[in-house]
Amino acid sequence: MTGTLTIAGLGPGSDVLVTPEVSAALASATDILGYAPYVSRVPPRPGLKLHPSDNREELARASEALRLAAEGGQVVVVSSGDPGVFAMASAVFEALEQAPQWQELPIRVLPGITAMLAAAARAGAPLGHDFCAINLSDNLKPWAVIEKRLLLAAEADFSIAMYNPRSASRPDGFGRALAMLKEVGCGEHLVIFARAISTDDERIETVTLNEATPEMADMRTLVIVGNSQTRRVGRWIYAPRRSR
Amino acid sequence: MTGTLTIAGLGPGSDVLVTPEVSAALASATDILGYAPYVSRVPPRPGLKLHPSDNREELARASEALRLAAEGGQVVVVSSGDPGVFAMASAVFEALEQAPQWQELPIRVLPGITAMLAAAARAGAPLGHDFCAINLSDNLKPWAVIEKRLLLAAEADFSIAMYNPRSASRPDGFGRALAMLKEVGCGEHLVIFARAISTDDERIETVTLNEATPEMADMRTLVIVGNSQTRRVGRWIYAPRRSR
Repeated sequence: MTGTLTIAGLGPGSDVLVTPEVSAALASATDILGYAPYVSRVPPRPGLKLHPSDNREELARASEALRLAAEGGQVVVVSSGDPGVFAMASAVFEALEQAPQWQELPIRVLPGITAMLAAAARAGAPLGHDFCAINLSDNLKPWAVIEKRLLLAAEADFSIAMYNPRSASRPDGFGRALAMLKEVGCGEHLVIFARAISTDDERIETVTLNEATPEMADMRTLVIVGNSQTRRVGRWIYAPRRSR
Repeated sequence: MTGTLTIAGLGPGSDVLVTPEVSAALASATDILGYAPYVSRVPPRPGLKLHPSDNREELARASEALRLAAEGGQVVVVSSGDPGVFAMASAVFEALEQAPQWQELPIRVLPGITAMLAAAARAGAPLGHDFCAINLSDNLKPWAVIEKRLLLAAEADFSIAMYNPRSASRPDGFGRALAMLKEVGCGEHLVIFARAISTDDERIETVTLNEATPEMADMRTLVIVGNSQTRRVGRWIYAPRRSR
């Protein structure tokens, strides 16, 4: 049987947010690779080999997935959310660039509900107007690039979805990001802290940027900083479609 | 029975990209409202009333949906893609702001696979690094705001997902946007034209910005302009995770 490689998004956590396309890919897989907490979302069954791995091992995991597919496996690499948004798809194509012998393998990328869409839906419609998505991790880019992008995003009056705002190994960047946005006049913008949306640990909270503190976010939090027009209606937060 | 209002995303077109959560909402609905081509994706059945309406009637449709829910209906407003990204969710909250008597209605927003995620998955991983999403329609915002955001996005080296790049009533803006990005030095960036992804009319094409022409896009096209690092590997396009 010809091997295949599928890079699939499991959505933010709940099974009701997994697309039928992804469910079908998981059902016919021989091998599942991914960060251990995501692999653990796939139920074991006879004939399916689970290959959980550690965080920060994306490139090694991607190469291993290509190798297993080249050997004939029906291989699925799983990401939380969408595999193309700060997740495994780019890592697989990086690995593929280093291994031209595998470039003819049948590869598919299956989209998923990325964290910002799940968070936005729970809050209302804070991404209803132009927005950007920035990965706040400086593991793979200089912090100066992140700062520059945040400042330009504020100047453009984008709503800003912040992925990976804060972790044990990067405790300080998020506080600097908040301080910088305050300095450039976004203090009254609404900020949504959406943690583990659609899981049992879900928690969502909205404050102004002036009220926001770094401790409100951890590695399972997606942060959305509203633009100048973002506002509350009842218990909902939304960005009006119009802008002046 | 208490009325409810659900704002649901149908994904880009294919049934295999509709989440189980959305399918369940459609199955228990009494009324479906939306732009006619999206309502037509919901199969008719006894007890279900379909309310197709024209484009550009978002606010009237939203008010009607609230009214039907207030009268006890299990009302679902459908959008293509994700309802929170340049779609019906913001319109519903705008209508709600004008109608405080309905603010206690049970409302849910159900996320969907938005066009840029479907397009990115088909192309590879062009949204694997920081990016922004801009609605190129100037129906609800001045064109100058769009130009400003495009320039700042280019300066930030975001990949840029362009929604609603071009329509019969707005034939010229997209060409101006391409010209402007060329002027500021993005001519060698890769541009993905992704039309009607996951439908029978699917078509995807990638060229450099210098090679791109306005006619490559229509109202069913999602355009992704890559950042300075976006590149090809085999038949795939991706944004590397690293940036300098």
